[in-house]
Amino acid sequence: MPDFFCEDFIIGEVKTFGSHTVTEEEILAFAREFDPQPMHLDAAAGKASLLGGLAASGWHSCAIMMRLICDGFLLRSASMGSPGVTENKWLAPVFPGDTLTLRRTVLESRTSRSKPEMGLVTFRLELVKPDKTVALEQVAVVMIGRRNPGARLA
Amino acid sequence: MPDFFCEDFIIGEVKTFGSHTVTEEEILAFAREFDPQPMHLDAAAGKASLLGGLAASGWHSCAIMMRLICDGFLLRSASMGSPGVTENKWLAPVFPGDTLTLRRTVLESRTSRSKPEMGLVTFRLELVKPDKTVALEQVAVVMIGRRNPGARLA
Repeated sequence: MPDFFCEDFIIGEVKTFGSHTVTEEEILAFAREFDPQPMHLDAAAGKASLLGGLAASGWHSCAIMMRLICDGFLLRSASMGSPGVTENKWLAPVFPGDTLTLRRTVLESRTSRSKPEMGLVTFRLELVKPDKTVALEQVAVVMIGRRNPGARLA
Repeated sequence: MPDFFCEDFIIGEVKTFGSHTVTEEEILAFAREFDPQPMHLDAAAGKASLLGGLAASGWHSCAIMMRLICDGFLLRSASMGSPGVTENKWLAPVFPGDTLTLRRTVLESRTSRSKPEMGLVTFRLELVKPDKTVALEQVAVVMIGRRNPGARLA
């Protein structure tokens, strides 16, 4: 039985979850497999790039954020998956040693028109560094089961 | 010296690149590290989900597409990175054994206002299955160096 249903995500609510400290080894491993651009693989190339140093692939930042989302609340929710992301901004580079936290804001919540047992919750999801810099900002829609499919959403 | 500068991406041009056949092992490895939701880890949970079977994390699809982008053209271009993605739609699940191809459409191209040596090229990027189903659709902006910073873009 999930802890969180659609009804538990209150519009306007802001919460922070977890943390993950990024290592150079994981930056290199992800880049070698998925994004072998020089600025993600080599210190000198990173320094010469707009990133200013060896930095994680933007897709690696997305993957790290997804893990914080899973561990923070998604695995305990009645999630049914996501149709997509309507915004994904790589605002600041992620460097080795950066400790990242997830900030979640509930932007919108409604019942699916086609599936009344399902809600659609829109989140702003941010990956935040200790100095409050936002490295990644997303707006994502998640399909989440309703606890009381018949009732009207508040 | 890169093969492709901003000027080489012609608005309206559609090209396909590369292919990658997804294995169950890589779906599981990515999911264990970044997205441990049951439908990405377990056949029965996948079958019971909206995905209809064990399927790759959406972020894994994004990472696979990034690799096809790198190998297809980005590593040979004057790319300076990307500020983000304005649309990211997971349209169909990616299953073990699926062979994915990249389709790239050039939507827009302009010179940066603040950096005249840099162009901003907007692409539609699609991950296509052999039966023509589109698994992932993105609209992404890429910063790409100009060959002739002084000249007007066509």
